[in-house]
Amino acid sequence: MTHHITSRHNPRVKAAAKLRTGRKREAAARFLIDGPREIARAIAAGVEIAEAFVCEELVEGDEATAAVTKLRAAAGEFATVAPEVFEKLCYGDRGSGAVAVAVPPTRSLARLQLPAAPLVAVIEGVEKPGNVGAVLRSADGAGLDAVVVADPRTDLYNPQTIRASLGTVFGSHVCTATAADTLAWLRTLDVPLVAARPDATQLYTQLDYRHGAAIILGSEATGLTDLWNAADVTPVRLPMHGLADSLNVSVSAAVMFYEAERQRAQAT
Amino acid sequence: MTHHITSRHNPRVKAAAKLRTGRKREAAARFLIDGPREIARAIAAGVEIAEAFVCEELVEGDEATAAVTKLRAAAGEFATVAPEVFEKLCYGDRGSGAVAVAVPPTRSLARLQLPAAPLVAVIEGVEKPGNVGAVLRSADGAGLDAVVVADPRTDLYNPQTIRASLGTVFGSHVCTATAADTLAWLRTLDVPLVAARPDATQLYTQLDYRHGAAIILGSEATGLTDLWNAADVTPVRLPMHGLADSLNVSVSAAVMFYEAERQRAQAT
Repeated sequence: MTHHITSRHNPRVKAAAKLRTGRKREAAARFLIDGPREIARAIAAGVEIAEAFVCEELVEGDEATAAVTKLRAAAGEFATVAPEVFEKLCYGDRGSGAVAVAVPPTRSLARLQLPAAPLVAVIEGVEKPGNVGAVLRSADGAGLDAVVVADPRTDLYNPQTIRASLGTVFGSHVCTATAADTLAWLRTLDVPLVAARPDATQLYTQLDYRHGAAIILGSEATGLTDLWNAADVTPVRLPMHGLADSLNVSVSAAVMFYEAERQRAQAT
Repeated sequence: MTHHITSRHNPRVKAAAKLRTGRKREAAARFLIDGPREIARAIAAGVEIAEAFVCEELVEGDEATAAVTKLRAAAGEFATVAPEVFEKLCYGDRGSGAVAVAVPPTRSLARLQLPAAPLVAVIEGVEKPGNVGAVLRSADGAGLDAVVVADPRTDLYNPQTIRASLGTVFGSHVCTATAADTLAWLRTLDVPLVAARPDATQLYTQLDYRHGAAIILGSEATGLTDLWNAADVTPVRLPMHGLADSLNVSVSAAVMFYEAERQRAQAT
């Protein structure tokens, strides 16, 4: 059913706007997706869209129009809204024209489907939603088979994470888990476990990623926890030639992902 | 001369706080540096510090304390300030305890000092200060010999650029120039010119960076201008295996910088 909402005080609009706070998202077991492209990626990944609000005046371009058509078909409830109503719903200053209320998908280690010799990544305890999203975007580009957000310190479906990931956070290759469960799971994969640590002696380029690998990164502020000091986890570092002593976690991740990608592409 | 400022209405404090806006920075030919670490990197790079404001209550840790000692020696004018005064001066919510008013250093293509077979980067028309800073941080890590910020769309000494670069923006290997001057200068270097373009046929890993190279990247939104379609510029792309069709410019830059670094390290 489609209808048009012109009042900022509409109860559905008010309920959706409340999902901007993390606590409300958790209580309602719903989250918001901003932007036609991001919503289309969520739908493609099988995420259930409970409700959608579209401001037709703001939907621009073929990609966005196609995404709205898909959204209309997929959403449980669909409403068009006036620009002043959309302003209340949208995130930041982006007038992208579509906001969806989505049901958090069930994503767990047990549900990951991996090929032989998988290339997977783990990020432990990363605080900033933008960094989590940036790692997911790079993992998507490099073709990783799975990314585990371990012991997350931020809601996986935080609007900033969704935006920085360009919607790749919705992929069925992404899940959250405790760090302990993640390590136990990694040990079943029969791939080298490689942890990025600034004090490692080996360089990241000295390892062989051609038969799969798990690349494990911690937060910039605190690094990896002691869990990853296990004997079967190989510490590696990126060379640091300058004044600064570290890279952004999303940059370290991308450099390692693409080194693994390079080796694997040359092996085939 | 050191003195202690307790009033938010102190004229020097008011003049410094005005430098938060880009227009005032340009008019005054001064800019602000936030944070002891960033200030120390500026001093080490020879940047002239006209004036410094330190809130001793907020300076924490050995690194910051050492930086403040250097700042006291280097600054033309040095004042300690009360916390409520510092709040007016500082950027964002970071109570890092030190703000410096600095003189923009003269950084030009002509002043760059390069080794034989240099590895240099050019970023053209990148809009977001945070992205410029992130590229500079990665270039520092990968040991690039120069970075040219060509046709900048943002003030090089924007506070966000300084922060994202961790102060590496002050290095004498960083300069701004027009894109046309940059290309003319690159042609004098006798190194391959390599431009990142999503539609390239060659992969970035297929080139040889061991005898120097110039890695050229455009903005995420608009890419490189036609200037870089020249026959002596080789387009390359990063493999994109996922749903999204691009990487963040700072991520593309880091992956290419570290591929060049890898090849060069293995060549020696």
